[in-house]
Amino acid sequence: MGSWEDFYASHLPPTDFEDNRQLLKQFCEHHIKDENQNIVLVTSGGTIAPLEHNTVRFVDNFSAGSRGSSSAEYFLQNNYAVIFLFRTKSLEPFTRHFSGQQFLDMLEISDNNENSNINVRPDSVDVLLPILTKYKTAQESNRLLYINFTSVSDYLWLLRAACEALAPFERRALLYLAAAVSDFYVPQDDMPKHKIQSGATPKISLQLVPKILKPLVSTWVPNAFVVSFKLETDDSLLIAKSRESLMKYNHKLVIANILQTRRHRVVLVTPTTSEEILMTKEQAHSGLEIEEPIVSEVCKRHEEFLAGAEQ
Amino acid sequence: MGSWEDFYASHLPPTDFEDNRQLLKQFCEHHIKDENQNIVLVTSGGTIAPLEHNTVRFVDNFSAGSRGSSSAEYFLQNNYAVIFLFRTKSLEPFTRHFSGQQFLDMLEISDNNENSNINVRPDSVDVLLPILTKYKTAQESNRLLYINFTSVSDYLWLLRAACEALAPFERRALLYLAAAVSDFYVPQDDMPKHKIQSGATPKISLQLVPKILKPLVSTWVPNAFVVSFKLETDDSLLIAKSRESLMKYNHKLVIANILQTRRHRVVLVTPTTSEEILMTKEQAHSGLEIEEPIVSEVCKRHEEFLAGAEQ
Repeated sequence: MGSWEDFYASHLPPTDFEDNRQLLKQFCEHHIKDENQNIVLVTSGGTIAPLEHNTVRFVDNFSAGSRGSSSAEYFLQNNYAVIFLFRTKSLEPFTRHFSGQQFLDMLEISDNNENSNINVRPDSVDVLLPILTKYKTAQESNRLLYINFTSVSDYLWLLRAACEALAPFERRALLYLAAAVSDFYVPQDDMPKHKIQSGATPKISLQLVPKILKPLVSTWVPNAFVVSFKLETDDSLLIAKSRESLMKYNHKLVIANILQTRRHRVVLVTPTTSEEILMTKEQAHSGLEIEEPIVSEVCKRHEEFLAGAEQ
Repeated sequence: MGSWEDFYASHLPPTDFEDNRQLLKQFCEHHIKDENQNIVLVTSGGTIAPLEHNTVRFVDNFSAGSRGSSSAEYFLQNNYAVIFLFRTKSLEPFTRHFSGQQFLDMLEISDNNENSNINVRPDSVDVLLPILTKYKTAQESNRLLYINFTSVSDYLWLLRAACEALAPFERRALLYLAAAVSDFYVPQDDMPKHKIQSGATPKISLQLVPKILKPLVSTWVPNAFVVSFKLETDDSLLIAKSRESLMKYNHKLVIANILQTRRHRVVLVTPTTSEEILMTKEQAHSGLEIEEPIVSEVCKRHEEFLAGAEQ
């Protein structure tokens, strides 16, 4: 595995990097003026690792962005300013509730005199109104910033820029790293220039992506409350691997989950404690999302962390 | 490369396969009653090839679904009934014009008396109205069927089911195969059960996906007008590879394009002719999409093919 310095040195920033860095800076400078304003960086969705320079094929990570996009809504509800760093086309807060044609199906055309109007069908207003109201509140109070990425290299550049902007918040900054970041990538030098021809059966040699939590926790935002996620498919490894991660990176909390049960069970793991959040079938059927208690518990722990510092 | 029979024998159909097969059957049985009704299958978006049984990682093909989703709209405009077989979350006809928060930003809340209404802002009505009108026309005339897939194996199962439903249309059926289908997959037996651990740097051995055009053209829909796509990054190979494909599979037309220029240039290749469709900068700036002339030319050739049969 190369070092993280090598990775940045050998990968160019994304083309719109400077624009995004400015947006991050402005957003943070606006909110830091209010000394009671907490702020969270939510990362969401999977990153891709291209297999070719002119990218036709890439290795992707499974992630629709459900966890990150719903959590962002609950952080807004808990009065956080939210930087939502997400994979292009993955789920986003508020719009995530509607897919495909659902938006168009909610609309009806009415003609009065010579003008056409388009309005939401009365039977859809009940569903849409609370979501739209929350969205407009977030927009009007400028408490939600969207920044998007596609490749693992884009992600790492934007993550570092976000940390630079967040560092002045010190302990008030919360990092909620829910994105499914590629562990592997194909080094630029090993990448064919053109599309791999389908006559052969290629073997792809993958390299490990450097573990970015290390410099993030120790150097970039050393005072922040950092929460990472651990997704496994094998339950027997879950807690041990979470503890291993906490020991290695020295951050505050791992939210551990198993692929198959992640919608109704997570475990909040610290070096000395583990607390399960479990949703019953009844809760799930009534429309409760597990991200509501998760975010509520994370905010509580962040508050305790802030209060601890003041004593 | 295994045979296509082996591929179906070793991959289970997707879980909702029977429902989709019924939808395809009903849609085709409805439209075949009108003997002047042409029908097209548009495939769109990329397929994935999972790397693990409990899929966390997969190899994906680059495709947003732009070509397929816009073409589907133009086929509707040319009075075709359209089966839109698309990758989950890729672009869809009509909704493709709006991304992310654009839908929510178009809406405003108005309160009169005790009721809340939601309507489209007057300055957005002009943009939305023609799109919404076309969408509603397609829905009301039942001329658009959406079927979606994720993995290459889902795609192959649904493609064959669509062909079975389309076969009775004989020459009236047009197949417009714009999906970016994986060339490679990891055989089930070589796949690890659990997530690949990130301590090692795995080598992934890929197998070739069987070329499904062969049985499709020769056996499944032997009378249909079949159009395939060829995407390359190297211009020097484009026409030769298209001709090679036409010789091998014996279908009617290859639409050839280069990744970097695909939005404003394609070449329509037959065994004996090649015709370029090129958009000028002015046409592109005025909002013309290249799929409009492409689909119009394909429909013309399909009409000629139908007329030829009657002579």
